[in-house]
Amino acid sequence: METIRSRIAARALAPGDRVPSIRSLAASLSVSPSTVVEAYDRLAADGTIISRPGSGFYVSSGTQPFALANVGPRRDRAVDPLWVSRQSLDAAPSVIRPGCGWLPPDWLPQDSLRKAIRAAARSDAVILSDYGSARGLSALRGHLSRQFQSEGLNASPDQILLTPSGSQSIDLICRFLLRPGDTVLVDDPCYFNFHAVLRAHQVKVVSVPYTATGPDADAFSKVLLEAAPRVYLTNSALHNPTGATMTPQVAHRILSAATAHDVIIVEDDIFAGFEPELSARLATLDGLARVIRIGSFSKILSPAMRCGYIAARPDWIEALTDLQIATNFGGPDALVTEIVHAALTDSSYRRNVETLRRRLSAARSTVAARLEPLGIRPKLMPRGGFYLWCQLPGGLDAADVARRALERSIVLAPGNVFSVSESATDWMRFNVSQMSDPLVFEVLQEVTGVGHLGPRSSE
Amino acid sequence: METIRSRIAARALAPGDRVPSIRSLAASLSVSPSTVVEAYDRLAADGTIISRPGSGFYVSSGTQPFALANVGPRRDRAVDPLWVSRQSLDAAPSVIRPGCGWLPPDWLPQDSLRKAIRAAARSDAVILSDYGSARGLSALRGHLSRQFQSEGLNASPDQILLTPSGSQSIDLICRFLLRPGDTVLVDDPCYFNFHAVLRAHQVKVVSVPYTATGPDADAFSKVLLEAAPRVYLTNSALHNPTGATMTPQVAHRILSAATAHDVIIVEDDIFAGFEPELSARLATLDGLARVIRIGSFSKILSPAMRCGYIAARPDWIEALTDLQIATNFGGPDALVTEIVHAALTDSSYRRNVETLRRRLSAARSTVAARLEPLGIRPKLMPRGGFYLWCQLPGGLDAADVARRALERSIVLAPGNVFSVSESATDWMRFNVSQMSDPLVFEVLQEVTGVGHLGPRSSE
Repeated sequence: METIRSRIAARALAPGDRVPSIRSLAASLSVSPSTVVEAYDRLAADGTIISRPGSGFYVSSGTQPFALANVGPRRDRAVDPLWVSRQSLDAAPSVIRPGCGWLPPDWLPQDSLRKAIRAAARSDAVILSDYGSARGLSALRGHLSRQFQSEGLNASPDQILLTPSGSQSIDLICRFLLRPGDTVLVDDPCYFNFHAVLRAHQVKVVSVPYTATGPDADAFSKVLLEAAPRVYLTNSALHNPTGATMTPQVAHRILSAATAHDVIIVEDDIFAGFEPELSARLATLDGLARVIRIGSFSKILSPAMRCGYIAARPDWIEALTDLQIATNFGGPDALVTEIVHAALTDSSYRRNVETLRRRLSAARSTVAARLEPLGIRPKLMPRGGFYLWCQLPGGLDAADVARRALERSIVLAPGNVFSVSESATDWMRFNVSQMSDPLVFEVLQEVTGVGHLGPRSSE
Repeated sequence: METIRSRIAARALAPGDRVPSIRSLAASLSVSPSTVVEAYDRLAADGTIISRPGSGFYVSSGTQPFALANVGPRRDRAVDPLWVSRQSLDAAPSVIRPGCGWLPPDWLPQDSLRKAIRAAARSDAVILSDYGSARGLSALRGHLSRQFQSEGLNASPDQILLTPSGSQSIDLICRFLLRPGDTVLVDDPCYFNFHAVLRAHQVKVVSVPYTATGPDADAFSKVLLEAAPRVYLTNSALHNPTGATMTPQVAHRILSAATAHDVIIVEDDIFAGFEPELSARLATLDGLARVIRIGSFSKILSPAMRCGYIAARPDWIEALTDLQIATNFGGPDALVTEIVHAALTDSSYRRNVETLRRRLSAARSTVAARLEPLGIRPKLMPRGGFYLWCQLPGGLDAADVARRALERSIVLAPGNVFSVSESATDWMRFNVSQMSDPLVFEVLQEVTGVGHLGPRSSE
């Protein structure tokens, strides 16, 4: 059944096409004809194919919807980006999530969030009752514009579009720039949901190794020549998952190569707020000519009230605004943008962020020290943020470790979920803010301990 | 410039293709060669085409992004869906908007919204700090499931996916069911943003006339035969823009025809809350086999805190959930779903909705009575909701009327913005809740008055 379904999903079989004969499929799969008969009967029962007596089976002209599960290479569930996302999102409160990509509630600025929500409850009736403007709250766009200015990037508020989330920013840009079959370049490793959204857009994905100083510039030039990607999608500031920071020299080389090959760069600045001091930005070097800058406040304020942004060339923002109206009738919730703006401009914001950075810095050191005796070592010690990208000892399979940890109610993020080339088998991303419970290290010791990874120990 | 750009947008010219020679383009457009030279120079300046000396101009291998403005037939801005949306969204507070699709602030339940927001400010830290589950707040899905049950539709909470908005529900379903080049059937007239989102998905759009009793069932069967659409996208309860309600007989005929031709129906229930009593639903007749039910609370609660939903077959909900994670890392804001759930389950909700229905009923009568002397007559008097779909007197061009009204700071929604076949030239949709200012009727008298529609009167 999967063979036929995936051929249909991949459009190798179109509606109306005859599916392979029972005999030929049985031969090519080395199964018995009766197995194929049963599979075809089930596919016919659910309407995927139809039987024409005397003629064979045909792909139904009806519904072969687009399921991500049927697109792209079949991967072990434990290293499938959607599976890891769902484990993190749907975990029971008792589950510990060192694999997730956000901070625990008590690390976020609860007091200023509550204050901002209370202020919203008192705000003008129009704010509580309107869709908001097409580009989103002018005051928040002005705030961003001034922040960019202070970083050396000129972008007028009209060059900024607010979106419902950082993910929606990427999705909207994919709609705008990409067609099925186009090629997109990402880092290896990179944020795993990049893979998922690119799969949803049915584009080819190629990758460049991400080093301690940014993308490997030689490999970058080579892949531009060989694969001619249309877009390069990357993180600046604090790279996800490695925590590395691109140097100015690498930034200059990457931008020069992208310019020479006419590649558009989408620079995701989602962890910018966690930097101790500003690092090199492609968008700033380039002045938003071929670089599109995106970001959001979900990491530093709260994932429960999301607001993302896109900063780009004015004509691109204009087209992106149209696309956002067509697909969402506007951007983020007007109520949420008010709350986010109030929280960002609250007098306590700067102090809260500094406290958070110090707390994270301490947690990175503590967690690294506790992983050390387990033989789990970070590739580098990041300047900021909450990730440690670590190699497991003795060539352990991180997916295997993650599966075992899940049985103990701990969600981990195994390396290959981040790796297009699946070359991070023995790597793991740890979120240090989610590791205050000592149980994490006990379980890690157990599931990585030599002798435990042969036949599973009884529990 | 537009000729070349739209050929590129329509992919008639691909990257690397040679653009027509200056001489041949000048001849085919009946313009002077110098006009073409100037256009090509400008296209070269902005990077759309590149000049190869001695050889001609070529489409740049770089960026021809997807701008909705370049897709589909070029339409007068006044009857372009995106233009009307933007006019409504970005209007200054002083502008009157009988053309918009929402209620004024003081018609919405401000007190219970404020109460729900205050309660959110006091809620558990986890609610304020988490992405929420993959399908969205379980309590709200349970509430919807019980509501559907009371209407005779069985859908478990697991068959319901919360989304950021009704528009996003449609967009997600389009990603799931449609490929570029597929055909989609809509009503004529229908909600104008249906056209915009379908354009974004690059599908063919065909239409069926919408009568006072629902879609024309004979025409419906005919178009299924002739155009073989994959999906039929429609409004139930109170149709937008006509305000008509489908009868049970028509519902049965439509569903039977859709079943015979294996067409999936997307039934948008966005105005359900405004119905005085429940009318026929395709989803209920069908039991969510081939019908997908969508809706939102933006109209009846507030457009500033949006939350939509999709109810469908379990396997479809599963695939849609994956798609929503890939493109938005989850659904609506967790904070917003809490607020929406609190407002919907507030003890005042039922009473507020009844008051709103009575107020709208009175407004529909009042506005119809005030339009009558102007010769502007509704096609029918709807059972509920805020729209009157009216014919203008003497074959007046509604787009012309809308342009003139805009000069007087009044946003109208001219008929052809709703009409795929552009056969609603002398129709206009009025939102009765936005017409309490007598100025609206003065301006309407002025801009529709005989003698004013020749040469424009000086003001």
